[in-house]
Amino acid sequence: MPNTTPPIVQSSELVEYRNAILAQVPPNSDFEPLMTFKVVAATTPEMVAAHKKAGATAGKLYPEGVTTNSEDGVRDLKELYPTYEAMQKHDLVLCLHGEKPGAFCMDRESAFLETLGTLARDFPSLRIVLEHATTVDAIEMVRGLPANVAASITLHHLRLTLDDVVGDKLSPHHFCKPIAKRPSDRDALVEAVLSGNSKFFLGSDSAPHTVQSKECDCGAAGVYTAPVLLPALAEFFDEHGRLDLLEAFTSSHSNAFYKLSPTTSKITLTESDWEVPREIDGVVPFRAGQRLGWKVAPKVESSGTNTQLQAAK
Amino acid sequence: MPNTTPPIVQSSELVEYRNAILAQVPPNSDFEPLMTFKVVAATTPEMVAAHKKAGATAGKLYPEGVTTNSEDGVRDLKELYPTYEAMQKHDLVLCLHGEKPGAFCMDRESAFLETLGTLARDFPSLRIVLEHATTVDAIEMVRGLPANVAASITLHHLRLTLDDVVGDKLSPHHFCKPIAKRPSDRDALVEAVLSGNSKFFLGSDSAPHTVQSKECDCGAAGVYTAPVLLPALAEFFDEHGRLDLLEAFTSSHSNAFYKLSPTTSKITLTESDWEVPREIDGVVPFRAGQRLGWKVAPKVESSGTNTQLQAAK
Repeated sequence: MPNTTPPIVQSSELVEYRNAILAQVPPNSDFEPLMTFKVVAATTPEMVAAHKKAGATAGKLYPEGVTTNSEDGVRDLKELYPTYEAMQKHDLVLCLHGEKPGAFCMDRESAFLETLGTLARDFPSLRIVLEHATTVDAIEMVRGLPANVAASITLHHLRLTLDDVVGDKLSPHHFCKPIAKRPSDRDALVEAVLSGNSKFFLGSDSAPHTVQSKECDCGAAGVYTAPVLLPALAEFFDEHGRLDLLEAFTSSHSNAFYKLSPTTSKITLTESDWEVPREIDGVVPFRAGQRLGWKVAPKVESSGTNTQLQAAK
Repeated sequence: MPNTTPPIVQSSELVEYRNAILAQVPPNSDFEPLMTFKVVAATTPEMVAAHKKAGATAGKLYPEGVTTNSEDGVRDLKELYPTYEAMQKHDLVLCLHGEKPGAFCMDRESAFLETLGTLARDFPSLRIVLEHATTVDAIEMVRGLPANVAASITLHHLRLTLDDVVGDKLSPHHFCKPIAKRPSDRDALVEAVLSGNSKFFLGSDSAPHTVQSKECDCGAAGVYTAPVLLPALAEFFDEHGRLDLLEAFTSSHSNAFYKLSPTTSKITLTESDWEVPREIDGVVPFRAGQRLGWKVAPKVESSGTNTQLQAAK
């Protein structure tokens, strides 16, 4: 994601960021980062063309002030119509942090949906992803819009409600944006995922904020799900007797929407009881101290750039 | 309040607690603690009579698990009808932590109101206070019930919404129970207080949790308003051009409801700019680091047990 410091706004920055990522990848890996630029008020159609040329997959737009490093976000989404037009022309995906600035926290996503509908109507060939959907309103909206609009759903929003943040004690490690909503909202996400509708696929939105930046008087937003992501998703689908949907939700639905080449490499999950560490490199992971019944198998067959998931019981 | 550890359940404990409080009071003070016992499932009419004899003013009931030290709270409020009957007979006030256990945090108070209505109907001479009301639903309910039902309102709920807890960063020092609700709820509290209706009076609900117990992975609920309570209330009424209501809200409305002897002592507030300390004895107070324009004048005329408030401009 491009909300780094500094942000990924110019195509040269996108290239540099990709190189920085690749420098961390083991030499025999086939991992290929899919690069995203930040859509800011100053993003021109020419910059979009340059991003495409540099190999970008998508541009992400953050309304001003709605999440981490979004102070430079877009104030008036309507002003960027030439930019969306260019993204549509270059077949780049528009990823949206779908929250309306200034709205009450529980209403921020719902208040943004009118804008999503307008963009979807005005750019019928632009692929749009409403990222980390959290509400029944968002699910219903995306379900009703044409095939160019999808929504990503996180692991943690399939599990948490506001009660897990402020219902009993205050739980900073469950605090994220968009904030987890009502049980009825969470249930709508679960239902959407279990429906197998290809409009709904995984977006991890994992955020490794340190213990210090979480357990303080002004805690950072984000949940660190990366260390448990696939095992906890396997647990989720297993609980619902739908392990058959794991691969589509985590991989093939988004592969198809993003028009990526067919999956060839495989990740295998096996049943194995383990306890999630209470802390990993100074960060408290999701499900810290709890037990999980699935584990990523160590051996990874690699012969392609994308990923196929298999859970073996 | 009686949710101490151990709780104030027996009249002997009430007497001990009063003595412990009085031991902290300067010898020339006329401060008189108004004692409250905890209404638990085991509270009998006989215990109520003993509390009355020991000088209790009120009994407070916490539904099970809704706030600090309420693990021994009441599970089924209907089972305590003989206890309420005794409280009504002995003219003791029933104070309610009005949240329904197990309900979603934003709905807990509203879900409790049916019970409040039932108690008010079944015990028409029992004085009942819905403590720390936070919703438009509660305000409308209490306004519509007979004169035996009132609601207390805190300083912090007149100021905060959920946005101040989880809207931008996570703010553990604004986390309390009941949780601060929507802007429309906060506005209803403000309107109720400014209406001058004597059913709505101050309940401070100040909770001095340490920094360590707030800024951690499992933060305690409560806002420490005591150090700024009267100055911040003077600011509130001054902002609304209604300093004339300060004394009634903080003192005479509740004096009348609690049938206390007429006010004779005085607290005077004067305009004086000061900065609220960032920490007081290891606790972060409400409005920490912010400026207030009112201060409690040092001299207190004391010639009685209750308090009359005066703000001089």
